[in-house]
Amino acid sequence: MPEHRPRELSEGDPFGAATLPYGVFTTPDAPDHPRIGVRYGDFVLDAAAAAAAHGSAHAALLDQPTLNPLLAAGRPVWQAVRAEVRSWLTGEHFHPLAEVTLRLPFEVADYVDFYASEHHATNVGKIFRPDGEPLTPNWKHLPIGYHGRAGTIVVSGTDVVRPQGQRKTPADATPVFGPSVRLDIEAEVGFVVGTPAPENTPVGLDGFRKHVFGVCLVNDWSARDIQAWEYVPLGPFLGKSFATSVSAWITPLDAFDEARTAPPERTHPLLPYLDDTDSEPGGIDLRIEVRINGETVARPPFAAMYWTAAQQLAHMTVNGASLRTGDFYASGTVSGPEPDQRGCLLELTEGKGPYLADGDEVTLTAWAPGPGGARIGLGEVTGRIVPAHGTTAP
Amino acid sequence: MPEHRPRELSEGDPFGAATLPYGVFTTPDAPDHPRIGVRYGDFVLDAAAAAAAHGSAHAALLDQPTLNPLLAAGRPVWQAVRAEVRSWLTGEHFHPLAEVTLRLPFEVADYVDFYASEHHATNVGKIFRPDGEPLTPNWKHLPIGYHGRAGTIVVSGTDVVRPQGQRKTPADATPVFGPSVRLDIEAEVGFVVGTPAPENTPVGLDGFRKHVFGVCLVNDWSARDIQAWEYVPLGPFLGKSFATSVSAWITPLDAFDEARTAPPERTHPLLPYLDDTDSEPGGIDLRIEVRINGETVARPPFAAMYWTAAQQLAHMTVNGASLRTGDFYASGTVSGPEPDQRGCLLELTEGKGPYLADGDEVTLTAWAPGPGGARIGLGEVTGRIVPAHGTTAP
Repeated sequence: MPEHRPRELSEGDPFGAATLPYGVFTTPDAPDHPRIGVRYGDFVLDAAAAAAAHGSAHAALLDQPTLNPLLAAGRPVWQAVRAEVRSWLTGEHFHPLAEVTLRLPFEVADYVDFYASEHHATNVGKIFRPDGEPLTPNWKHLPIGYHGRAGTIVVSGTDVVRPQGQRKTPADATPVFGPSVRLDIEAEVGFVVGTPAPENTPVGLDGFRKHVFGVCLVNDWSARDIQAWEYVPLGPFLGKSFATSVSAWITPLDAFDEARTAPPERTHPLLPYLDDTDSEPGGIDLRIEVRINGETVARPPFAAMYWTAAQQLAHMTVNGASLRTGDFYASGTVSGPEPDQRGCLLELTEGKGPYLADGDEVTLTAWAPGPGGARIGLGEVTGRIVPAHGTTAP
Repeated sequence: MPEHRPRELSEGDPFGAATLPYGVFTTPDAPDHPRIGVRYGDFVLDAAAAAAAHGSAHAALLDQPTLNPLLAAGRPVWQAVRAEVRSWLTGEHFHPLAEVTLRLPFEVADYVDFYASEHHATNVGKIFRPDGEPLTPNWKHLPIGYHGRAGTIVVSGTDVVRPQGQRKTPADATPVFGPSVRLDIEAEVGFVVGTPAPENTPVGLDGFRKHVFGVCLVNDWSARDIQAWEYVPLGPFLGKSFATSVSAWITPLDAFDEARTAPPERTHPLLPYLDDTDSEPGGIDLRIEVRINGETVARPPFAAMYWTAAQQLAHMTVNGASLRTGDFYASGTVSGPEPDQRGCLLELTEGKGPYLADGDEVTLTAWAPGPGGARIGLGEVTGRIVPAHGTTAP
């Protein structure tokens, strides 16, 4: 039984009453009973137990092994549950965060990765295509994206095995096979779709709040050597499909109301379905920090993203594609204009490396300004690189 | 209750006792009871009912709304069930095919689309990149693939709404928005993964029979105008994500034992994980027919594919990516060397069109040689184009 009451939160704790992100956890006494919890400081509110104790109408929705039923329930239920959770914070149904095991909080349907930072796209374009314009002609007209592998999305804390694969540099006569020697990170922000949408009903810019449940951090691990050799003409595949790490906590979109900010000025006119001139501000003032082995290597500003999450959602569905509960999309690497604001090692080292070594541990954290000076946190994403497995003899 | 006994099958029926593909169906008297059936000629064996009547140990596995539990059960169970099904063909548990409703037969996990026909890649490369080499430098070294949208895979017979989106030709000063004016087909062959594989255990060429349950046809509908504008640098996205049609029937891989054939001679040496010199023949002698409004427009030969499905599976997992039950991968457009063997209109018309008009109905069929002169069929894939919906005001 839960027995710990939360202490006072410290000043500036990014997981106070204005944040309240959802996750799925187990406790040592009930390892086969995953259920929904809410992070509060360094404690986890056992939402399933609290709901049952309070006779909540949402008790069944919270005693679930994934967030998906809650995601599917839609925005009015999200708001009602959030209000109930807030009322339960004075109660007793807490576990110390250090004593629970966190799971991947939702079952991922489709995963789409965008490419929404002009600074990132420009920096990478210069490195990957040194003889061409860094931005492709379409970049300012649509949020470029592609589908990634949903089945290899893992929760924060999961070790990442160094991938193997083909690579070929101009110096190599033929491709070589082996563990990636240019293993990189990509610091991104992810958006979890709750309310589904049928096919052939584009959700538009205004559908963002209706369909998106919450926000998390993403580390889109990338093997640059594998990616560089494979990605023309059909895009990234094995260079990214081995693992994508996400937060154990999904912070509700509504927690970021005070952090909404106008995106950078658009340099090209947009087609009406993407024109957010008269919409609510589409940016979010999230400040990300990237640490490798405890040392801060970058502070990417999410507010600098050219394309917003609302534009990405509108674009993703404008062709008639449906949305499913559990669809997940990520922003693309977050990079700002300054050298210490770049969200991947490819950019931070201007293509020269070094990249990740075995044993390196990468941690992403982020917060945004909230009401009354509060900080709104995203759950951290951490992962450690372990050596490539020797299970094939190439 | 089923009341029809199957008549004798006609000579050369591709759905005889050597084929026996699995699907999911409902009957008018039980529209809320989807269950597994097996096609036999123009009849559907009610496998769930037959299994129950015969006291089969697999009765529960067959009384399911998707094939996924059967897929997950693994190859020994697939073989045992196939033998039981064959013994039930003399029984009474049949429905006329025309009287059942067929559903998407499996829940799709991740969807990967390859690009495995040298003829297709060469033809398309000449059209999309007229100033460069038609094949990219990597093409002969690895089976190029990318992830597609699993949530918009639909069963044969589903109407396809013309997608809308951005396009820009060199003649356009800025992008224009509207219904695609270059809507195309891609005739492909798809492979359904049954047995899962954990992360970081590449399945290799020899894993093909262990992990792949069966085969179907795929029409990877493609809006060429949307695709051409969006696909550099990260690959196809909205040009394909609106709909992908698959057969209602999954033909077990074992049905194609007599149709296995050596792939075309490799012009470049392959890395060991892809080198199938000493493996069982990786090609399948499937003869595909593409009909538009009843008129045959192409006969693509699957035996001409450069990369095999076993190589694709080995490649997909070599980086450590796991496999899930329900993972699905398609071959890429099947095109042969002759002009009338091309699997898409882009190639058939050498980029000049015409493309699909509203009201056009496209049907793919295919068969392979089986034992004793039998034909082994894949379930047809058919779809009709309906006008774009006017649900957004761009």
